[in-house]
Amino acid sequence: MVFKKITLIGTSPDSFDAAADDAIDRAEETLQNVHWIEVDELGVEVASVDDREYQAEVTVAFELEE
Amino acid sequence: MVFKKITLIGTSPDSFDAAADDAIDRAEETLQNVHWIEVDELGVEVASVDDREYQAEVTVAFELEE
Amino acid sequence: MVFKKITLIGTSPDSFDAAADDAIDRAEETLQNVHWIEVDELGVEVASVDDREYQAEVTVAFELEE
Amino acid sequence: MVFKKITLIGTSPDSFDAAADDAIDRAEETLQNVHWIEVDELGVEVASVDDREYQAEVTVAFELEE
Amino acid sequence: MVFKKITLIGTSPDSFDAAADDAIDRAEETLQNVHWIEVDELGVEVASVDDREYQAEVTVAFELEE
Amino acid sequence: MVFKKITLIGTSPDSFDAAADDAIDRAEETLQNVHWIEVDELGVEVASVDDREYQAEVTVAFELEE
Amino acid sequence: MVFKKITLIGTSPDSFDAAADDAIDRAEETLQNVHWIEVDELGVEVASVDDREYQAEVTVAFELEE
Amino acid sequence: MVFKKITLIGTSPDSFDAAADDAIDRAEETLQNVHWIEVDELGVEVASVDDREYQAEVTVAFELEE
Amino acid sequence: MVFKKITLIGTSPDSFDAAADDAIDRAEETLQNVHWIEVDELGVEVASVDDREYQAEVTVAFELEE
Amino acid sequence: MVFKKITLIGTSPDSFDAAADDAIDRAEETLQNVHWIEVDELGVEVASVDDREYQAEVTVAFELEE
Amino acid sequence: MVFKKITLIGTSPDSFDAAADDAIDRAEETLQNVHWIEVDELGVEVASVDDREYQAEVTVAFELEE
Amino acid sequence: MVFKKITLIGTSPDSFDAAADDAIDRAEETLQNVHWIEVDELGVEVASVDDREYQAEVTVAFELEE
Repeated sequence: MVFKKITLIGTSPDSFDAAADDAIDRAEETLQNVHWIEVDELGVEVASVDDREYQAEVTVAFELEE
Repeated sequence: MVFKKITLIGTSPDSFDAAADDAIDRAEETLQNVHWIEVDELGVEVASVDDREYQAEVTVAFELEE
Repeated sequence: MVFKKITLIGTSPDSFDAAADDAIDRAEETLQNVHWIEVDELGVEVASVDDREYQAEVTVAFELEE
Repeated sequence: MVFKKITLIGTSPDSFDAAADDAIDRAEETLQNVHWIEVDELGVEVASVDDREYQAEVTVAFELEE
Repeated sequence: MVFKKITLIGTSPDSFDAAADDAIDRAEETLQNVHWIEVDELGVEVASVDDREYQAEVTVAFELEE
Repeated sequence: MVFKKITLIGTSPDSFDAAADDAIDRAEETLQNVHWIEVDELGVEVASVDDREYQAEVTVAFELEE
Repeated sequence: MVFKKITLIGTSPDSFDAAADDAIDRAEETLQNVHWIEVDELGVEVASVDDREYQAEVTVAFELEE
Repeated sequence: MVFKKITLIGTSPDSFDAAADDAIDRAEETLQNVHWIEVDELGVEVASVDDREYQAEVTVAFELEE
Repeated sequence: MVFKKITLIGTSPDSFDAAADDAIDRAEETLQNVHWIEVDELGVEVASVDDREYQAEVTVAFELEE
Repeated sequence: MVFKKITLIGTSPDSFDAAADDAIDRAEETLQNVHWIEVDELGVEVASVDDREYQAEVTVAFELEE
Repeated sequence: MVFKKITLIGTSPDSFDAAADDAIDRAEETLQNVHWIEVDELGVEVASVDDREYQAEVTVAFELEE
Repeated sequence: MVFKKITLIGTSPDSFDAAADDAIDRAEETLQNVHWIEVDELGVEVASVDDREYQAEVTVAFELEE
């Protein structure tokens, strides 16, 4: 059994939880067998968006198929 | 005055805030004089649970009785 | 173009998101051209407050005027 | 000459060396020109396996084809 | 569900794997529901032992009973 | 031979050395076979004390009885 | 909006700037919507090359298509 | 003698050296007695600029007047 | 309630404790509501001073006025 | 009593344990009074060797003669 | 002008300051042109000494002769 | 095959690249079999020099003779 890890940054106008969910949702659309997620960094973009954009950088671990 | 620190991981099906509260609730059930909590890591378990389980690893600092 | 970074700690009785927003609100009251925020640490104060005080230490990056 | 790095977690019922080899074996099945591996973390899974499962998270560096 | 983490250092005259197993064995003697172990540091004591003593500092995560 | 590590914060109105000694004194009151101490962090509390309170967070390593 | 991050190592016989550019050039050949790059590590290879090979390990962040 | 440290991010279309110089130039316009600079992070902005913008985050240490 | 953090380096010909106190003294001259201090780094300057100059880099946290 | 620390990288075609022993063996050939060793990093070289070369970077602490 | 850095651990039965001075004294006996010292770690040995032995691991920077 | 690592700081009035080259040049004057260099820190000295002195702290890895 071998796992692979990739790094995604999810975004949300609402909260850090929603930003993390955004990244996990995207991971589960394209990857099977997602096992767990680690939060690497949280941030907020202000200048280039209308209000505030919550961001969550997460590492996604999924099992590779044999 | 001497403080001790222990490390707990709280879990919640709802949010990172609730997962941290879960760990603090548990600490306050068994420890008197909890002073503060530091969040060490946030994560999400996916594979072994029904939907998503938010996890917060926290360090709890409490005052030791003389 | 030169940016400056400062470190603030926002607080909230409700959640980590609200604590981060508290710090960003304060930054935007006194600073123009706030570009982004990085979350450095999350914590909860217990002993010196009524219930629980969520805290978010954030680094605020803003553009210096020429 | 450009290298790319990916992160894999190998597993073994026997030892940390075998867990690292498991990840390197998998990398060499699908990647040409693997140059070196760095060990990021070692761990042991206990609860969800029969006995103990040694795990080695490794970063694999390989040369991209021109 | 709340987990607690403690830190142990296992020792062995033979190898790092055996030193980690030594710490895990000790944890399982006194703790129920050990879930996983993270290796924090590896070292070798030379001066105060006959030959070489391999050491593995590990963090043990176990589930607290309700 | 297995060691366990715990984390204490000692305090003193006088100096960092005295704050570290405060934590070590407390450890030796309740633990046998303390082997060594690592200093993790130094700080000074100002707002909630009369003058200044020096603080030393230390990790205490002690040998577990067989 | 979801970003993905990958890690590349660019090389150059001339300078660290050119090594970073080498990695960014490669990223832009195969990825659309590269947003920013973070420099993780700088190094110089000496033994296996004619003179000196400057190396820049960079993390490339790009926006995933919906 | 007391020093203060502040954090600036300089930018340049040309190189990391020029980006660091940009931050130091700005510091010396407004601060007397700059003593030394530490480079914290290097990066390149791509998406929001014409070509590439090299960025250097630096910590500037200067002596406070008595 | 919002806190701000700044970084100072205190110096003393005598000891690390005195160097930290030097920085805290300076902070309290110009800032109201200093709450706590964290020690970031300790060092000793030798070459440019008569004997030895102990240095303590500290982060000072103070409450911003509403 | 003063200790000095040096950094060595041992190599082995067989295992991480043997790579660490290789570095310790070399240290003990040329240094008296080696006290302990800390493992800094583990890695595997693939491209420039026949099969796999396990590498262990270790810090060796030894007592200086008076 | 090129500097070299070496790592020493000084010891003292009295205090962390004296342990750091012990290492600096040793450095100045054998090295010319010591410029500055950085404190890496502080610790206390208990088990193998009569009372307590304060330890300071320091990095010593000195200028190499041309 | 055993490697040793030492730490040097090169300096240059011109650039970070030249400062790193300064350290590598010095290493190659006195050491045979230099294999690779890792850049640990970049900085700029301002107060004690005429203009600006770029500094690169590098770790040099070289193969020890059998």
